[in-house]
Amino acid sequence: MRILFVGDVVGQLGLTLVQKYMPALKHQLKPQVTIINGENIADGKGITERLYKALLLAGADVVTLGNHAFRKRETVDFIGGTSKLIRPANFPPQVPGAGYTMINVNGVKLAVVNLQGRVFLDNIDDPFQKIDILLTKIKTETDLCFVDFHGEATSEKLAFAHYVDGRVAAVIGTHTHVQTNDARILAKGTAYLSDVGMVGSYNGILGVKPEPVLHSFLTNLPSRFEPIESGPGQLGACYIDLDATSGKAKKIQLIRIDPDHPLMEM
Amino acid sequence: MRILFVGDVVGQLGLTLVQKYMPALKHQLKPQVTIINGENIADGKGITERLYKALLLAGADVVTLGNHAFRKRETVDFIGGTSKLIRPANFPPQVPGAGYTMINVNGVKLAVVNLQGRVFLDNIDDPFQKIDILLTKIKTETDLCFVDFHGEATSEKLAFAHYVDGRVAAVIGTHTHVQTNDARILAKGTAYLSDVGMVGSYNGILGVKPEPVLHSFLTNLPSRFEPIESGPGQLGACYIDLDATSGKAKKIQLIRIDPDHPLMEM
Amino acid sequence: MRILFVGDVVGQLGLTLVQKYMPALKHQLKPQVTIINGENIADGKGITERLYKALLLAGADVVTLGNHAFRKRETVDFIGGTSKLIRPANFPPQVPGAGYTMINVNGVKLAVVNLQGRVFLDNIDDPFQKIDILLTKIKTETDLCFVDFHGEATSEKLAFAHYVDGRVAAVIGTHTHVQTNDARILAKGTAYLSDVGMVGSYNGILGVKPEPVLHSFLTNLPSRFEPIESGPGQLGACYIDLDATSGKAKKIQLIRIDPDHPLMEM
Amino acid sequence: MRILFVGDVVGQLGLTLVQKYMPALKHQLKPQVTIINGENIADGKGITERLYKALLLAGADVVTLGNHAFRKRETVDFIGGTSKLIRPANFPPQVPGAGYTMINVNGVKLAVVNLQGRVFLDNIDDPFQKIDILLTKIKTETDLCFVDFHGEATSEKLAFAHYVDGRVAAVIGTHTHVQTNDARILAKGTAYLSDVGMVGSYNGILGVKPEPVLHSFLTNLPSRFEPIESGPGQLGACYIDLDATSGKAKKIQLIRIDPDHPLMEM
Ligand SMILES: [Fe+2]
Ligand SMILES: [Fe+2]
Ligand SMILES: [Fe+2]
Ligand SMILES: [Fe+2]
Ligand SMILES: [Fe+2]
Ligand SMILES: [Fe+2]
Ligand SMILES: [Fe+2]
Ligand SMILES: [Fe+2]
Repeated sequence: MRILFVGDVVGQLGLTLVQKYMPALKHQLKPQVTIINGENIADGKGITERLYKALLLAGADVVTLGNHAFRKRETVDFIGGTSKLIRPANFPPQVPGAGYTMINVNGVKLAVVNLQGRVFLDNIDDPFQKIDILLTKIKTETDLCFVDFHGEATSEKLAFAHYVDGRVAAVIGTHTHVQTNDARILAKGTAYLSDVGMVGSYNGILGVKPEPVLHSFLTNLPSRFEPIESGPGQLGACYIDLDATSGKAKKIQLIRIDPDHPLMEM
Repeated sequence: MRILFVGDVVGQLGLTLVQKYMPALKHQLKPQVTIINGENIADGKGITERLYKALLLAGADVVTLGNHAFRKRETVDFIGGTSKLIRPANFPPQVPGAGYTMINVNGVKLAVVNLQGRVFLDNIDDPFQKIDILLTKIKTETDLCFVDFHGEATSEKLAFAHYVDGRVAAVIGTHTHVQTNDARILAKGTAYLSDVGMVGSYNGILGVKPEPVLHSFLTNLPSRFEPIESGPGQLGACYIDLDATSGKAKKIQLIRIDPDHPLMEM
Repeated sequence: MRILFVGDVVGQLGLTLVQKYMPALKHQLKPQVTIINGENIADGKGITERLYKALLLAGADVVTLGNHAFRKRETVDFIGGTSKLIRPANFPPQVPGAGYTMINVNGVKLAVVNLQGRVFLDNIDDPFQKIDILLTKIKTETDLCFVDFHGEATSEKLAFAHYVDGRVAAVIGTHTHVQTNDARILAKGTAYLSDVGMVGSYNGILGVKPEPVLHSFLTNLPSRFEPIESGPGQLGACYIDLDATSGKAKKIQLIRIDPDHPLMEM
Repeated sequence: MRILFVGDVVGQLGLTLVQKYMPALKHQLKPQVTIINGENIADGKGITERLYKALLLAGADVVTLGNHAFRKRETVDFIGGTSKLIRPANFPPQVPGAGYTMINVNGVKLAVVNLQGRVFLDNIDDPFQKIDILLTKIKTETDLCFVDFHGEATSEKLAFAHYVDGRVAAVIGTHTHVQTNDARILAKGTAYLSDVGMVGSYNGILGVKPEPVLHSFLTNLPSRFEPIESGPGQLGACYIDLDATSGKAKKIQLIRIDPDHPLMEM
């Protein structure tokens, strides 16, 4: 089974890039499952029902989120009615929405889990305790599990991956918006990547206009960050090949598309 | 002018890997200048005079540091007597040692600057204000400047790079110990990479033994982190080609050596 | 010389309480100088020109600020034109407004300084380095100096007070909105109080409505905090008696007014 | 029922002060229960079995802890064998020791709970979720409950107190080492105090020698903090009177003893 995973989609430009590149990516890579992190699609922070549906239409089978999951007020209301939009599973119990979902791939089930780190991030439930609870449930249905671990610190992401090594097929990081060059398969068979990167403007700072970010660093004054919505784009993604019998990863491969790295045959 | 930059060397194994790969790297790449970040070489945190000299002997022209610069007590005493060991320039004024140094490359001067970010890190002086002060001094001597920006947050590293774009030849990140896949040359000619990665064990978590790190995440109890000193290694580095006339970067190239990526002809 | 210092005024209710109690406080205590922290007066975050003037009219000689100084957009524009509104002096150099001001008290000058801590707060300039620079300037004009140190951590506030002990008349903390019970005069003559408290609702949480705060702690979802604008109030303040010749403090006294501690003769 | 609660005991001097003042405090106040926070008694960080027993001998019925609970290695081993030494209940499940204990007071049971905040502190389990779980258990045995909430942020302490208002008799804060002046009884009957203060040196910074603390703030270099073990002392405490029938608080009163506030008849 091949999973295509696409990093944090930033703004309308991010969506446009997904729509632009997805046909070629699907044509070339032929993934059975496509997962996209959508936490930044609505003006750079959060998601709306319209944009969630636009991601499905663009080719996503599951949309994951992160610390900006509920920045748009409507998300609290509509997330409970969705089946393929998940938010970090270790958000507190009162938070609406699900933290994982099941995908049917030609009769085989894949669990897709979203978790969020705590180092340099919000005070939420423990992702290490949470994954044990989730896997107990998930293992009654399937041995195939993909984790989008939304986090800042490389130490936490790697520690988590070691913790679940051999128990899930892949732990792929999101949140920093910068793709890392450490894709590998760990000792017991879990594919790992610290961060898959983002989809959005290739200029600017992590997809947003550089001037307000620089203003903020130089003055510490309040600044309003806005995504860049035109000009050259970048797309950060990866694909993972799983052994559907063992639930282990066989291969992980980075995908980086930008003006310096145009899409080519892979 | 070609600069070879090697990321955080972790422990004795890190040093051994530098010693092992440097001859081949120098033979293949023929860098005029080699810069190595040594903040983790002494038992994973800090540096000693003996290890600083070992890095010079192994091929470093300059050794940079970071938040662990002074973890070994002797560093406060010997750093003032060194000429090629620098610590972040934006440490407070009372801190011993220099924050930049000049290298002579066939009659051309290259300034090597070490700075440290503040987001998710220590409360030190502002790296943005500091680089302006430093560049005023440096520009009286040379137009060529390389910056090791030791930091956690991708936003701060990228913001800094935009701030100095066109004013320095390269801003290369260190500290996260994970190489990023975003090497590029910015609009005005500055080479950029969010993090160059580390040198040390390929197993474990960022070069240290995984059990204490996992213990710490699972229990929040005090844990003693120790570098892994045997087994397979990894080396994260990059090289940058500068135009010695303009001070702009012409090329930046990642180097990753580990069991999954053996050293080959480049 | 007697200085009356009033803590963070929260919302319109805070202003109303200042207006209500100031006549009695001035009548009873007869302070020569009244200083009020106004960083929360505009809807709980920031200040407007109208509210600054209302504080002057209510009896303030100087209005100090803190981390919320520039939450209202107009503050960047009008602060430069004021003479008695100061923001933390260790904000970066590009920030408008002054970090200290001089008050004339019957021919004697008092310097009023605003500084902000960095522990658990924003990345700004070093308050320890900054006070040395400021005192060099101030000492050319007067030996009398009052400091509003806006900070979170008790360790940083106390360390700062020890650092300037004997060099300023008083270091009084703000920001936590909770009055501390550690008023004292340090060994070399500086009056110290970790936090003076706030002015605003006696119910709720630090002056704001409790429901959104609890919602935030229970769900980590975005919440909009709003000051409570009616019902019982509290006023946290203190007064300090200085020796105008030596610049040392002779006395520091807490003031706490709330339904459990009605204003009485002092 | 009267509960005497004494804040963080720092070092040997702290223990000596407890031993010195406890007889007079008990004689004057006649508490049925005495609770002491001991997280800093062993060289400023942590506790040993010997010192735990010394606190019992000095008059403690229960000893609570905080973020430094396990700084001494032996604590992991001996805490499980104690009945009156508790550590924060919201430490992860694998941590040894209990988070609450029951005290028999003339046939009436009092539950003593230790919890720790997360704002500006360690990533542990949610204290809000935890108290609900604990109270469900505790309420099967008694309606009387005292909480030592070890935390940094006043917002979190107050939010917690509002959350449990009417469900526990008292929420008293520890950790900042500075007594606050906000003792009160909340609307539904819970006694509240943001921080009770510390026991230890009256000089220095929060009980430790000022020079290393200042060195740390001025240079950001590693510094070893040590408690001051001689000279004048301070003792921060409070007492709470409970209605043993309703489990509500009737009175809360601060106790502050130091050279400026000698112990007097209360
Ligand atoms: Fe994101
Ligand atoms: Fe994020
Ligand atoms: Fe490092
Ligand atoms: Fe580092
Ligand atoms: Fe405030
Ligand atoms: Fe504040
Ligand atoms: Fe403590
Ligand atoms: Fe503590």
